[in-house]
Amino acid sequence: MLLNDVLEKLDEKQDRIIEIRRYLHEHPELSFEEEETARFIGDFYKDVPVDDIETDFGGQRGIVVTIKGAEPGKTIAIRADFDALPIKEETGLPFASKNEGVMHACGHDGHTAYMLVLAETLAEYKDRLKGTIRVIHQPAEEMPPGGAIGMIKAGVLDGVDAILGIHVMTNMETGKVFYRRGNTQTGRSYFKLIVQGKGGHGSSPHLANDAVVAASSFVMNLQTIVSRRINPFDVATVTIGNLDGKGTFNVIKDSVTIEGDVRAMSSETREIVEREVRAFTEGLERSFRVTCDLEYKNDYPVLYNDPEVTERVRKSIEQAQIPEVEAVLETPPQPPSEDFAYYLEKVPGCFFYVGAAPESGEAYPHHHPKFNIDEKSLIISAKSMAAAVLSYCGTTD
Amino acid sequence: MLLNDVLEKLDEKQDRIIEIRRYLHEHPELSFEEEETARFIGDFYKDVPVDDIETDFGGQRGIVVTIKGAEPGKTIAIRADFDALPIKEETGLPFASKNEGVMHACGHDGHTAYMLVLAETLAEYKDRLKGTIRVIHQPAEEMPPGGAIGMIKAGVLDGVDAILGIHVMTNMETGKVFYRRGNTQTGRSYFKLIVQGKGGHGSSPHLANDAVVAASSFVMNLQTIVSRRINPFDVATVTIGNLDGKGTFNVIKDSVTIEGDVRAMSSETREIVEREVRAFTEGLERSFRVTCDLEYKNDYPVLYNDPEVTERVRKSIEQAQIPEVEAVLETPPQPPSEDFAYYLEKVPGCFFYVGAAPESGEAYPHHHPKFNIDEKSLIISAKSMAAAVLSYCGTTD
Amino acid sequence: MLLNDVLEKLDEKQDRIIEIRRYLHEHPELSFEEEETARFIGDFYKDVPVDDIETDFGGQRGIVVTIKGAEPGKTIAIRADFDALPIKEETGLPFASKNEGVMHACGHDGHTAYMLVLAETLAEYKDRLKGTIRVIHQPAEEMPPGGAIGMIKAGVLDGVDAILGIHVMTNMETGKVFYRRGNTQTGRSYFKLIVQGKGGHGSSPHLANDAVVAASSFVMNLQTIVSRRINPFDVATVTIGNLDGKGTFNVIKDSVTIEGDVRAMSSETREIVEREVRAFTEGLERSFRVTCDLEYKNDYPVLYNDPEVTERVRKSIEQAQIPEVEAVLETPPQPPSEDFAYYLEKVPGCFFYVGAAPESGEAYPHHHPKFNIDEKSLIISAKSMAAAVLSYCGTTD
Amino acid sequence: MLLNDVLEKLDEKQDRIIEIRRYLHEHPELSFEEEETARFIGDFYKDVPVDDIETDFGGQRGIVVTIKGAEPGKTIAIRADFDALPIKEETGLPFASKNEGVMHACGHDGHTAYMLVLAETLAEYKDRLKGTIRVIHQPAEEMPPGGAIGMIKAGVLDGVDAILGIHVMTNMETGKVFYRRGNTQTGRSYFKLIVQGKGGHGSSPHLANDAVVAASSFVMNLQTIVSRRINPFDVATVTIGNLDGKGTFNVIKDSVTIEGDVRAMSSETREIVEREVRAFTEGLERSFRVTCDLEYKNDYPVLYNDPEVTERVRKSIEQAQIPEVEAVLETPPQPPSEDFAYYLEKVPGCFFYVGAAPESGEAYPHHHPKFNIDEKSLIISAKSMAAAVLSYCGTTD
Repeated sequence: MLLNDVLEKLDEKQDRIIEIRRYLHEHPELSFEEEETARFIGDFYKDVPVDDIETDFGGQRGIVVTIKGAEPGKTIAIRADFDALPIKEETGLPFASKNEGVMHACGHDGHTAYMLVLAETLAEYKDRLKGTIRVIHQPAEEMPPGGAIGMIKAGVLDGVDAILGIHVMTNMETGKVFYRRGNTQTGRSYFKLIVQGKGGHGSSPHLANDAVVAASSFVMNLQTIVSRRINPFDVATVTIGNLDGKGTFNVIKDSVTIEGDVRAMSSETREIVEREVRAFTEGLERSFRVTCDLEYKNDYPVLYNDPEVTERVRKSIEQAQIPEVEAVLETPPQPPSEDFAYYLEKVPGCFFYVGAAPESGEAYPHHHPKFNIDEKSLIISAKSMAAAVLSYCGTTD
Repeated sequence: MLLNDVLEKLDEKQDRIIEIRRYLHEHPELSFEEEETARFIGDFYKDVPVDDIETDFGGQRGIVVTIKGAEPGKTIAIRADFDALPIKEETGLPFASKNEGVMHACGHDGHTAYMLVLAETLAEYKDRLKGTIRVIHQPAEEMPPGGAIGMIKAGVLDGVDAILGIHVMTNMETGKVFYRRGNTQTGRSYFKLIVQGKGGHGSSPHLANDAVVAASSFVMNLQTIVSRRINPFDVATVTIGNLDGKGTFNVIKDSVTIEGDVRAMSSETREIVEREVRAFTEGLERSFRVTCDLEYKNDYPVLYNDPEVTERVRKSIEQAQIPEVEAVLETPPQPPSEDFAYYLEKVPGCFFYVGAAPESGEAYPHHHPKFNIDEKSLIISAKSMAAAVLSYCGTTD
Repeated sequence: MLLNDVLEKLDEKQDRIIEIRRYLHEHPELSFEEEETARFIGDFYKDVPVDDIETDFGGQRGIVVTIKGAEPGKTIAIRADFDALPIKEETGLPFASKNEGVMHACGHDGHTAYMLVLAETLAEYKDRLKGTIRVIHQPAEEMPPGGAIGMIKAGVLDGVDAILGIHVMTNMETGKVFYRRGNTQTGRSYFKLIVQGKGGHGSSPHLANDAVVAASSFVMNLQTIVSRRINPFDVATVTIGNLDGKGTFNVIKDSVTIEGDVRAMSSETREIVEREVRAFTEGLERSFRVTCDLEYKNDYPVLYNDPEVTERVRKSIEQAQIPEVEAVLETPPQPPSEDFAYYLEKVPGCFFYVGAAPESGEAYPHHHPKFNIDEKSLIISAKSMAAAVLSYCGTTD
Repeated sequence: MLLNDVLEKLDEKQDRIIEIRRYLHEHPELSFEEEETARFIGDFYKDVPVDDIETDFGGQRGIVVTIKGAEPGKTIAIRADFDALPIKEETGLPFASKNEGVMHACGHDGHTAYMLVLAETLAEYKDRLKGTIRVIHQPAEEMPPGGAIGMIKAGVLDGVDAILGIHVMTNMETGKVFYRRGNTQTGRSYFKLIVQGKGGHGSSPHLANDAVVAASSFVMNLQTIVSRRINPFDVATVTIGNLDGKGTFNVIKDSVTIEGDVRAMSSETREIVEREVRAFTEGLERSFRVTCDLEYKNDYPVLYNDPEVTERVRKSIEQAQIPEVEAVLETPPQPPSEDFAYYLEKVPGCFFYVGAAPESGEAYPHHHPKFNIDEKSLIISAKSMAAAVLSYCGTTD
């Protein structure tokens, strides 16, 4: 059976996966600036028998690789992201970032490393494959609007039947793979509200229109969205991370800037929050006679895993009996947002999780300066994805 | 000089003033229900040589008495109110109220008593008077819309050049007379807001629209009217005396009723408060998608004492050298509202104060079940008013 | 096989179930006042070959019936509640309530009806049963503190290995049975806060301490418990159903009474809410110098279905292939609270749901004056519970 | 009479006053940095027959000049301030500031100019004077803690019987002098509150403690100080001029800094506000479990004009029949605070106002980049102060 041969081959290449991951870790690049990383990925494929390779995909630094099987079949896309974060690394690892202030603190180095080696392996066996595999190396996952949107606009999903992606997770035990059907990661919105009143002297409030008071009333009212408007069994947060009423103690503020972050676990909920933020903004104008300038942007959507594809992923990994995988388990929903969700708005698919908590020592959360993964998670990622892909496309064996 | 004769005559009649006051005190009647009191007043004038007496004035129980002087001159109106309050008397006085639950707890018994005797005296001397004196016995001062409005509509001020009134004050020292020029007592507004949301079960707030939360936000926002919209050197209060969200603990309220009281020391300020209450109401509808039903009524206006008339009153009392009057002093503005303000909107005039704090014992505030005046204040009222009236109209002496 | 015989027998008795249900529906009684209903239940068992029957259990009107199998085994308790609600029935049914203002608007009539007939049937076949069945007829589910607490204190769970219960649900399709593992129905708390300020006249707020303003600030602050203190993936509601600041528009309120309802889907969350309500109460006292009297009562706990017992229930019903049951499905968590949760704090068990939406016409929610069930749900309840009980205890066949 | 001679002499010197004022206007210096201005003032007195001149008074740049009359009498202090403001001048005047970003936008140039020439004149006539005149040239009026405190500590008021000061006012008509008895300018407090919560990610509010929400609740509660705690007939403002919750939209703020300004028209009111701000701070800690660091500083006191001294000032100016002075009028209280109030806490005195609205064109308010005075106000200041001083000390004529 092809799967067994692929898994064996991946075992042989495990050191190379780690080597690549460490090289990438040492050379992180920020979202939308991943010049060297993109070149590295492109170079990797030079001697690999893939059928097509497109670089600078969609005007960004995306690389899309096509592997065609011997027989016709379904087209499946598999995606790995490759950008890093503006964080000063504090791991003390021998292969720590050489790019001061930039760090692979979210595991995208590992995503890319396993994906490259998996793609190479699948290409080597393509005469026993059915269908088509499209490998998506995506830039800029970390920074809105994210790299996925551009890839999709440029046609990366044309003809694709399903898409799969993996995230390695330091808050999940190494040796376990996790999945969830349906709404799985939060969708996200951003808003910016400028409350314009009228400045004045502290001793004559009646001649001014105090933007600080109006803004404070807005923040208090906003709390009622989650407390009163959202189904208690649903998920939403509304956070004002920026309340900028910086000024001089005795001068009434003419203007306050408010910036907020919204998370929700369904599009409907995201719409309710937007509707309410708009209502409170309109209400603020009427109540305090201020002028409000509201910018409201829906950002990464709710990540929705297709139940059938997810079930197939789950089964295929279980049945593959990968020695490193102790269990395939359902996970509760995950708070962060992820731009893989854009792909899943277009085609069915599944974004699943590979445990990567370090065997010993503390497991630092994603985006932490001491973030580090258990590298065993990379061979698990490669093998699990292999099992899922082959199950979906089928083989000629 | 006529004034000296009048003052002497009043001295002779001092006991009668007190007797009348005690009789009235014993027989108080509520606003708009002063049947017996009105009859008593009417009867009093039967043998008094006045030129005209009109009862049931303007469809109410007002009595208007006209005293014409020997020579032409100005027409001055002097007013005393005669209604009582729904208060259960606790004074223990021998002449305490015989009408259970009703009490002259604001001194209107005294106002009427001194006025009757003063009117009688002036009528007796009318051949030495110039001009015309119109004595207004007004019902229903205590209960909005007040008796003054009806009297005015019925023409009580037609041809009147100026109007004077007195209030006896237990919070001012007996033996002193107090005046203030310009805005002197607050104007008053009333509003009622019904906040209509949608009821529901406590465990499913998203299916309801919680009127309690909307109402609470309204109350908090309302505080900013006084704190931010009113000139700090001006006077205004906004009180929610009724916040009726009575309901069952686990049922989301569909509706909350709010009733408020507004005081202000100028018409402009009263208008600012109304504008803001309306703005917050509109804002509430937009913010919380509730339906608001607002009833807003301007009640007794700000009481404005004409500076010139007031100055004449002050001087005339000082110059009269009334033995019981130690001093004529300026007073700060007074918080309560008073329907005499309606007369002052139409004609210039002065509403002034006669100290009535009991010589010994506690001075209970107006509207208190133990309220009682020093009866010496009544002869002072009669004499001071006499001085002011004669000064204004002139005499033939 | 015993199960088949029991199911057949239940089929024969279907009309009796309905007859009993209609009788009970016609004669509803309020919580803690179920005299006639208890007598009816007791009388039912007179000729039934049960091994023990205890009435007035634990000083309440509970009836506990014991059925002993032929061979030793596990002890399983099955519970049905039998109280009604203070609701005026508007169904227009021929068997509508004859007890004006009281109504079986929650299906407890049906619970009792199926349970009586099921108990009789199981007793008839007890020589082929293993283990012991304890049938709990519980009063007063609807009214805190609920009837369960008393039954437990009186020992109803002594020796019990597991407990099962059913609720018929008009918001679930008839023909389907629903279950959920783990936290399934919300826990509940009640609180009452008296905010004591100081009364006064609307025109002199500085001499008073306005309880309305303090209470409004409290309500606004309270919104932040759900919006900021609770895990967005968790469930909690805090509702102020009673905000009693009823008063006179121009008199500053001395005191406001607040009553609230709390729901949560875990004990931890319930504790967080209590901690925060207490913190805001303390903060209110400091902020507004009011005196707060807080009564906080934890009421029905979170209903937790044991995963293993639930899985057994699910499987047993599926395997029974009951013709009336189209599917056995997982349900999302349920907002209401239920005093069955007290039993589940003591022994493992499962509370599951039988769809009872009327075939035609509107499905009115529980506690609605027009609430009515599809009576087909009763035979489904009886058969499903039979399948679960026999699977748990085992049979001698 | 001496006064007439002094007034005549001042007339002769009017051009010099203007010349000095323009020179100072061209060379403004910030509070506590008035090196050149102090030198200029010191130099001015070199040839003036004063009895004593102390520079660098009290370790600051104050200059105190003593003029002794021929006969013993009272000691009167007269004060002029000489610092400028950090404002970029936009008047376009030929003598506009040459010190970029610094401007005499409050008239202190004029105060100093008239005072120098008046002092010189009084010194020239000192053999006809009684008593002692102490001329206080005070630095740093504009910046708390203000220059007055240091002068007082250094003994500038030792032996002083009364103190007088003038402010030229562009919001008052030129040709008029204004006075007020009793509380005349507001007292001022400053507070800074750091609300320390705990930062976190926007999607997990329950792991953080949102300082933005706590700060907003504080701002709303603060509004109730003025609306509910202050006598409506009294004066107070509480302004939050700085609400610094600047941050990143999706990161929960750990800390917010609040800075506020308090004005009040009596010490009692100032104390009430402080008590309430402290109460709300304590309440905030309890309510939201944040840590609060409150710094509360009472700044310039309420400016209290001694009624008797003020009456003497009024009369002396009226009686002097200064041709440029059309009227001497009572003014309402003035919103700004002024460090002259410190002197008035120690000795009786009067701070009065000289109208300085430009004859044509717009009258820009104090502290405005286009602020400019009508220079006619300077001769009026000199003459009015001369009249007041001579009246107070007396002359030998």
